[in-house]
Amino acid sequence: MTAQTDRRTGGTSGIEVVAFDGDDTLWHSESHFVDAHQRFCDLLAPYVDDPRRIDEQVVATERTNLALYGYGSKAFTLSLIETAITLTDGRITSHEISDILELGKRLLDHPIELLDGVAEVVDALAATDRRLIVVTKGDLFHQEAKVAGSGLADRFDRVEIVSEKDVATYRRVMADAAVEPEHFFMIGNSVKSDVLPVVELGGHAAHLPYTYTWEVEMVPGANGADHGYHELTSIRELPDLVEQVAAGGV
Amino acid sequence: MTAQTDRRTGGTSGIEVVAFDGDDTLWHSESHFVDAHQRFCDLLAPYVDDPRRIDEQVVATERTNLALYGYGSKAFTLSLIETAITLTDGRITSHEISDILELGKRLLDHPIELLDGVAEVVDALAATDRRLIVVTKGDLFHQEAKVAGSGLADRFDRVEIVSEKDVATYRRVMADAAVEPEHFFMIGNSVKSDVLPVVELGGHAAHLPYTYTWEVEMVPGANGADHGYHELTSIRELPDLVEQVAAGGV
Repeated sequence: MTAQTDRRTGGTSGIEVVAFDGDDTLWHSESHFVDAHQRFCDLLAPYVDDPRRIDEQVVATERTNLALYGYGSKAFTLSLIETAITLTDGRITSHEISDILELGKRLLDHPIELLDGVAEVVDALAATDRRLIVVTKGDLFHQEAKVAGSGLADRFDRVEIVSEKDVATYRRVMADAAVEPEHFFMIGNSVKSDVLPVVELGGHAAHLPYTYTWEVEMVPGANGADHGYHELTSIRELPDLVEQVAAGGV
Repeated sequence: MTAQTDRRTGGTSGIEVVAFDGDDTLWHSESHFVDAHQRFCDLLAPYVDDPRRIDEQVVATERTNLALYGYGSKAFTLSLIETAITLTDGRITSHEISDILELGKRLLDHPIELLDGVAEVVDALAATDRRLIVVTKGDLFHQEAKVAGSGLADRFDRVEIVSEKDVATYRRVMADAAVEPEHFFMIGNSVKSDVLPVVELGGHAAHLPYTYTWEVEMVPGANGADHGYHELTSIRELPDLVEQVAAGGV
């Protein structure tokens, strides 16, 4: 059965819910962190001999603070301030710390830019009788602002903002959406957070890599063939893939 | 009908869901912010002639940043750092900014202390066939940690962590809990966030003041008699009040 034929039958018995990650799947996010990180490096350059020390210390501070701060721009900003004080042995000026605060605020108020193809694909899937949801991790307040700023809010049946994307979280999300794992399809840029826990529950998942992957989200060695998920190179491939999975074809 | 008689009938037709605010209703929160604020004032005292300027500038900075940062300890910490730089005209040292970061971390990792009577009252209500939920505002990651740290998590049917407690939020919370407003009873320390929006929807609410009220949560002139809500002086009064409301007695 071709995807086209299946789409005409309109069956949702196979896939009832298509769930999207937010950051770096629907809209750009990590690119803004990469920009902010670069401005941070420029700010610290006069104090630090080896620029690699900046990267290392930022990642180390973020990892240490993760259990306390969680994810998001405010956590990132606080970790940058801490890193700046540590790396400069306290020589960083309060004027430069103000610059870091500003850089953090820009992360919170930049306009939302959808990734290429997202608007068309979400519209196309919203026109089927499948339910669409967002499952996004991070700061509650900021993620809600992003969904609102995306212009896509009315296409989604539910928006689930979660602190961690693990098996327990997806089990709860599926229960709240009243959908069984085999009828649930998740797409996202993180193998660790968007793909593997869904597959573990018996759901369907597709990995769509973004230009950048945050160090903390990396899963060395994971691949679709060995781990039972789909690999996409463009979100434009999603509607056909969902139809094929729904029809039991892949 | 007395509360005792009603409790024996066990009827939940009147009230099906009892919803609790978290911070300053189930556990202490604002007292920790008050402590942190005091330590912040001590830190800035050498720089500022009139200590009232510190309070004013903290509240002004928090209000300005609210639309960007939302609520919670990380937002508070970032606003304190900004305030410190502003108030000292940049003379604050990076060592002192480290102290502010630490003070913010202590807000995030202090043990959860339940308010007096909470454990008994939650246990008593959990033993009825009413469903209990938490509706709490603030940082997703931190609020989840507080619920986990409270030792009460298994008494609650749902934990709703929200970015704002307004009419739209309570409408969604009630829909997700599949309860009509007239069968919903909310208790909390904030008239603005826990009481008025619930009453506006046709639900029942009780106000239980905490020792401190955050400036942003104040509603001058509100009172139970004029605004259709109940006023409690101890959470120990809650089970009887719920029974009376359920029986249509008050």
